Amino acid sequence: VRIVLDAMGTDHAPRTEVAGAIEALSELESDVEIVLVGDRDSIEAELSAYAEIPPGLTIFHAPDRVTAADPPASVIRRKPDSSIVVGLKLHKAGDADAFVSGGSTGAVMATSLFTLRPLPGVDRPAIGTVLPTSAEPCLLLDAGANVDSKPHHLVQFAHLGNIFAQDMMGRETPRIGLLNIGEEPGKGNELSVEAHRLLAAESGLNFVGNVEGRDIIRASCDVVVCDGFVGNALLKFYESVAAFIIQMLKKGLDVADTDVDLEDVFRVLDYSETGGAPLLGVDGVSIICHGGSTPKAIRNALKVASRAVRSNMVEHSARELAASIQES
Amino acid sequence: VRIVLDAMGTDHAPRTEVAGAIEALSELESDVEIVLVGDRDSIEAELSAYAEIPPGLTIFHAPDRVTAADPPASVIRRKPDSSIVVGLKLHKAGDADAFVSGGSTGAVMATSLFTLRPLPGVDRPAIGTVLPTSAEPCLLLDAGANVDSKPHHLVQFAHLGNIFAQDMMGRETPRIGLLNIGEEPGKGNELSVEAHRLLAAESGLNFVGNVEGRDIIRASCDVVVCDGFVGNALLKFYESVAAFIIQMLKKGLDVADTDVDLEDVFRVLDYSETGGAPLLGVDGVSIICHGGSTPKAIRNALKVASRAVRSNMVEHSARELAASIQES
Repeated sequence: VRIVLDAMGTDHAPRTEVAGAIEALSELESDVEIVLVGDRDSIEAELSAYAEIPPGLTIFHAPDRVTAADPPASVIRRKPDSSIVVGLKLHKAGDADAFVSGGSTGAVMATSLFTLRPLPGVDRPAIGTVLPTSAEPCLLLDAGANVDSKPHHLVQFAHLGNIFAQDMMGRETPRIGLLNIGEEPGKGNELSVEAHRLLAAESGLNFVGNVEGRDIIRASCDVVVCDGFVGNALLKFYESVAAFIIQMLKKGLDVADTDVDLEDVFRVLDYSETGGAPLLGVDGVSIICHGGSTPKAIRNALKVASRAVRSNMVEHSARELAASIQES
Repeated sequence: VRIVLDAMGTDHAPRTEVAGAIEALSELESDVEIVLVGDRDSIEAELSAYAEIPPGLTIFHAPDRVTAADPPASVIRRKPDSSIVVGLKLHKAGDADAFVSGGSTGAVMATSLFTLRPLPGVDRPAIGTVLPTSAEPCLLLDAGANVDSKPHHLVQFAHLGNIFAQDMMGRETPRIGLLNIGEEPGKGNELSVEAHRLLAAESGLNFVGNVEGRDIIRASCDVVVCDGFVGNALLKFYESVAAFIIQMLKKGLDVADTDVDLEDVFRVLDYSETGGAPLLGVDGVSIICHGGSTPKAIRNALKVASRAVRSNMVEHSARELAASIQES
């Protein structure tokens, strides 16, 4: 398994990426290789701080870097030598099996779409996000790749989420929920009413019906599908609430003194545990991390990428979507 | 100031309502009267537990009760003797200045629309919710009265929120934000792009532009407008995250032992502090409380109702909307 890691993505690149890659290699199977794509000198400078470089770590030079100021759709044309474009082209060419980046979400998404292309049957790839809950994590998609989705897009999201939950989260028959503002089938907006109808009629999905915002943390399903506007608003809200509470609590609490397992609370709130957001529905493995990622978050994203490759998630998704198309 | 309180609304009605009303009367100005509308016998049975009944408390008998099984739009026709219909008609007739209920949100909303009617210039009244943040609370609207809103509805919500924030939250020039998934004006879905254009052109509003889910808890504005679908999903998510964390923490923490002011954390997360959700844009004061409200939440909702009456919020809203219509 060979994973390209964009070394120039996060806010503290390439330090975070180098640390995350070295952590990942010490924990992953010995056949995993990580290719750090980015400015060779900067990467080597970071590596020089380590006494020993794991054998699976190599550097692929890419002189240019995408910044927040670059319009996402223009990156592939205007920054062909950037770590994002070079890295994704390595993946596309088969020189690597997966791509991980903590760079601009828009740029990684747009460039992944251009280079990897959507799978047949996918009109709009979606960003999946694994949300911590009070029990097992829950996959939310779309977390922001698309707005103004149509009902049949949500059905495609459901299939993509279904495969991700099986291959990556170990759920045998994932429970698929539709984010809505009421439990009954007729509730919600035009999109959710029609999407409910389509999802209920779709075979091959364990559709459990509407779920509300409150059901997510209660872990009442494995996959929640929604339009990217509401998914993104929800996600950013969750992150901020969690960060705020962690900040307030960590300030003054002595964990050893309390009966409650605070680490459990923090784990529920701690985003970096989950390891990046996959762009689902493209013909390849592309994982998007926060710009503010820690080495732990990068490490976890690399593990997610490795598992996606090993489980043949992309081929599995392609088969499921082909079956869904044939049926309809 | 005379407030009708639906005594049959909450999950533990009328006990919760009676306790909340008595608490409110002991704290509010002496000219406040509360009319408990509902089954006289049940209310009197609850009142018998109190050694002294405050003089401002009276009962108005309404034999019927709305349940979750009643379709909201049919309540006014099929349950004319219910506490919701009787109470709102008392308000409409001028026998009371405001209405508070912990009954079915849909039923209170629909019946308020039918009896109180929307103010001129309001196509769709909206539910406002005061969200606790890390600093001053923030009003979110619409929290679920409408779905598939049009851009001009969001402008109306902005005006309604503007007046609420002035009269009820003490903000002199409320900062109005548009919930979106990016900061720049061109970001978002069709609704938010066009709403941004309209809001930026609207005079009489301190429009601060797009705000993201993460900006709410940071208190970056006083009023956030959005469609009711995303507002409702966000709100229910917030409540559930807050309830979950409170539950985990309260289980094992000894507040006295810690340096951090846990009560501060809980206050941020504690919904009952804010006192119900007003239905804004109707020609009257109608406050909707959770079915699971505590007496404290009912007390706070009664205080909100009292303040809305005293500040002439409804007349103020009507003037602002008339000015906005005249201009456009």
